[in-house]
Amino acid sequence: MRRQPLVTLTTDIGSAYAAQMKAVLARRLPPGSVVDLAHDLRPHAVGEAAFLLRAMAVGFPPGTVHVAVIDPGVGGSRAPIAIGCADGSRLVGPDNGVLMPLAEALGRPRVFRIDRARLGSIGRVGTTFDGRDLFAPAAALLATGTRPARLGPPHRPVRYAVPVPELTATRAVGEVVHADRFGNLVTNVPTAWLPDDVRSVGVALGTGRSRRLPLARSYVELGTGHLGVLGSSFGLLELAVAEGSAARRLRANVGSPVRFERLRRA
Amino acid sequence: MRRQPLVTLTTDIGSAYAAQMKAVLARRLPPGSVVDLAHDLRPHAVGEAAFLLRAMAVGFPPGTVHVAVIDPGVGGSRAPIAIGCADGSRLVGPDNGVLMPLAEALGRPRVFRIDRARLGSIGRVGTTFDGRDLFAPAAALLATGTRPARLGPPHRPVRYAVPVPELTATRAVGEVVHADRFGNLVTNVPTAWLPDDVRSVGVALGTGRSRRLPLARSYVELGTGHLGVLGSSFGLLELAVAEGSAARRLRANVGSPVRFERLRRA
Amino acid sequence: MRRQPLVTLTTDIGSAYAAQMKAVLARRLPPGSVVDLAHDLRPHAVGEAAFLLRAMAVGFPPGTVHVAVIDPGVGGSRAPIAIGCADGSRLVGPDNGVLMPLAEALGRPRVFRIDRARLGSIGRVGTTFDGRDLFAPAAALLATGTRPARLGPPHRPVRYAVPVPELTATRAVGEVVHADRFGNLVTNVPTAWLPDDVRSVGVALGTGRSRRLPLARSYVELGTGHLGVLGSSFGLLELAVAEGSAARRLRANVGSPVRFERLRRA
Repeated sequence: MRRQPLVTLTTDIGSAYAAQMKAVLARRLPPGSVVDLAHDLRPHAVGEAAFLLRAMAVGFPPGTVHVAVIDPGVGGSRAPIAIGCADGSRLVGPDNGVLMPLAEALGRPRVFRIDRARLGSIGRVGTTFDGRDLFAPAAALLATGTRPARLGPPHRPVRYAVPVPELTATRAVGEVVHADRFGNLVTNVPTAWLPDDVRSVGVALGTGRSRRLPLARSYVELGTGHLGVLGSSFGLLELAVAEGSAARRLRANVGSPVRFERLRRA
Repeated sequence: MRRQPLVTLTTDIGSAYAAQMKAVLARRLPPGSVVDLAHDLRPHAVGEAAFLLRAMAVGFPPGTVHVAVIDPGVGGSRAPIAIGCADGSRLVGPDNGVLMPLAEALGRPRVFRIDRARLGSIGRVGTTFDGRDLFAPAAALLATGTRPARLGPPHRPVRYAVPVPELTATRAVGEVVHADRFGNLVTNVPTAWLPDDVRSVGVALGTGRSRRLPLARSYVELGTGHLGVLGSSFGLLELAVAEGSAARRLRANVGSPVRFERLRRA
Repeated sequence: MRRQPLVTLTTDIGSAYAAQMKAVLARRLPPGSVVDLAHDLRPHAVGEAAFLLRAMAVGFPPGTVHVAVIDPGVGGSRAPIAIGCADGSRLVGPDNGVLMPLAEALGRPRVFRIDRARLGSIGRVGTTFDGRDLFAPAAALLATGTRPARLGPPHRPVRYAVPVPELTATRAVGEVVHADRFGNLVTNVPTAWLPDDVRSVGVALGTGRSRRLPLARSYVELGTGHLGVLGSSFGLLELAVAEGSAARRLRANVGSPVRFERLRRA
């Protein structure tokens, strides 16, 4: 028996619009098929959403259908796309880069431009809410066996500029790619850039001088109220205040440039 | 095989109170039966909730049980009601108007006043949280086959005053009925009131003079940071700032009066 | 046929981290197994979370697996624990007290320290996100039939200091244990402490003089905008402003001391 795949939803549109997508899916899929990942992502923050979508969705079972609606370009010229990946997972969303880090992590993405006409009566015409009118219908079809190639012609996706850190033996220049609800600032510098045995690191926001901050294994080791650097659960260096907010302390946010420096006497 | 119906939940009570409703439902219904629509609606905003409930729930499969808990009158004289509709859908909630736009959209509503005594051991006595003590138990019974008429006597519902716009050939006087998380202001004036070919429209908040605003098909067409008018996904005219907040720009919110005027040289 | 148990999730980590826990569970459990209770609890507020977890989870069917991730001590010396209860329910989370009120309500808790090595390939090594790396894997094993004792050795849990009110015939000295999204302030003083027939009660925040407040059966009875005392849905006395916020009116929050006094002429 082939198990019915799950459909995950990741959006910045809030619960009330997302509910309208669930209605479309509920008409076609068995109970329990839809999994909410997040509907409260920072509005229009395509880069942060791409980062989070990869982290959230990559662990789901092969064959899952992942829908992402962070879509400031809705109604414009950006294409709606469906992607088939090596493990049988399918992705649906706008061609603005939000799907690509996940697609590449899932392997060998084949991208198709969704043709609204091929969605049949389940699709709707509209210019402001493709989540309901186009992406949810496409996801319902994919979850019930339609192949991505049946939704439209092959498409060359826009690749969103994922911020890549500059790494040398002594310096890493990157930026904040995610601020979580605790105020932890996750950067794009891999934790593995630092040797295991260092206990402190130089950190600068922007172009200023760096200051020495402790490198801790956990918030507890950092100590309540103290600012430091941790290896985050994303495998990336994170600035954190234990039981506090690094975002507030440092007045930094997604996009803030960060520089790490290895120190002599670590 | 008759499929077990879904139960949707729409509330302003937050996740922790809603979880207590889910516990009641989990005792009676199979896994996956419950669908969260929204638990973060504006507190006590019955009119906006009625508007959103209709938009969110109307697309669910026939036979679904929809529960709404926006209930500032809990413990007072307002009746708890259950409604059966033409397509077999059932609605449960307080008789304060929140259910009626959906009920009328689903067709031929028959309304019954829920008698707490008929809920049996699944119900509880209380005066501050009927969502858990009365509406979730009623929904569990309806979803497992009890007919609405079995929950209590026929009831004539209070009709909440849905704000109806005044429409003439040249002017539409309405109000904001929903502000979404982007700050888009959805009015109660149908998009269809405007001819397809106009490109701008006069808009006034309150009783002041109107100013000419562009009528755009999408946020992209409006242009980042620009204020204008769109046909929203609700089929109603919306004031929006592309990638910004019309609510903040205009200092307007749900209930703000809006006047649209057709312009000579559109 | 033994029904697959539900897994409930209660966290302060926000939707995006919680989604990573859902991915772990989705790989092992059938669709519809996971129920979100709350992911927006006050960050690091272990005591309030313990209070809410008990209220939310206690009504779920026997045998449910309840996971709680309010875990400021992650990566430190606090143990990860799994608990088996009298009704067959299982609890998973950090040993910081968050699980204990629920465990005691469910009866005869047997507590085991989770040994990461026993989670097999489903577990991951990490120091900042045991929700994904350890608790979700443990929950997946428990939900698929592994007994709690198989996850590690017996463990004597830390008992979080649940604030116990001092009750005499005339005075009750307690504190606020939960502030909900309406601004209602739920205290730890049982509603049953007050006789049924009183209509007002003396209330003081902190050590100041008390003032007479009405004791109402419902927000409606209190009257819009009025401050008073109610018997909350938790069975505890609550300070409330009908359709307003007692938290704002009184500038009080979780932890604020509250004193109730029986008045002569109630």
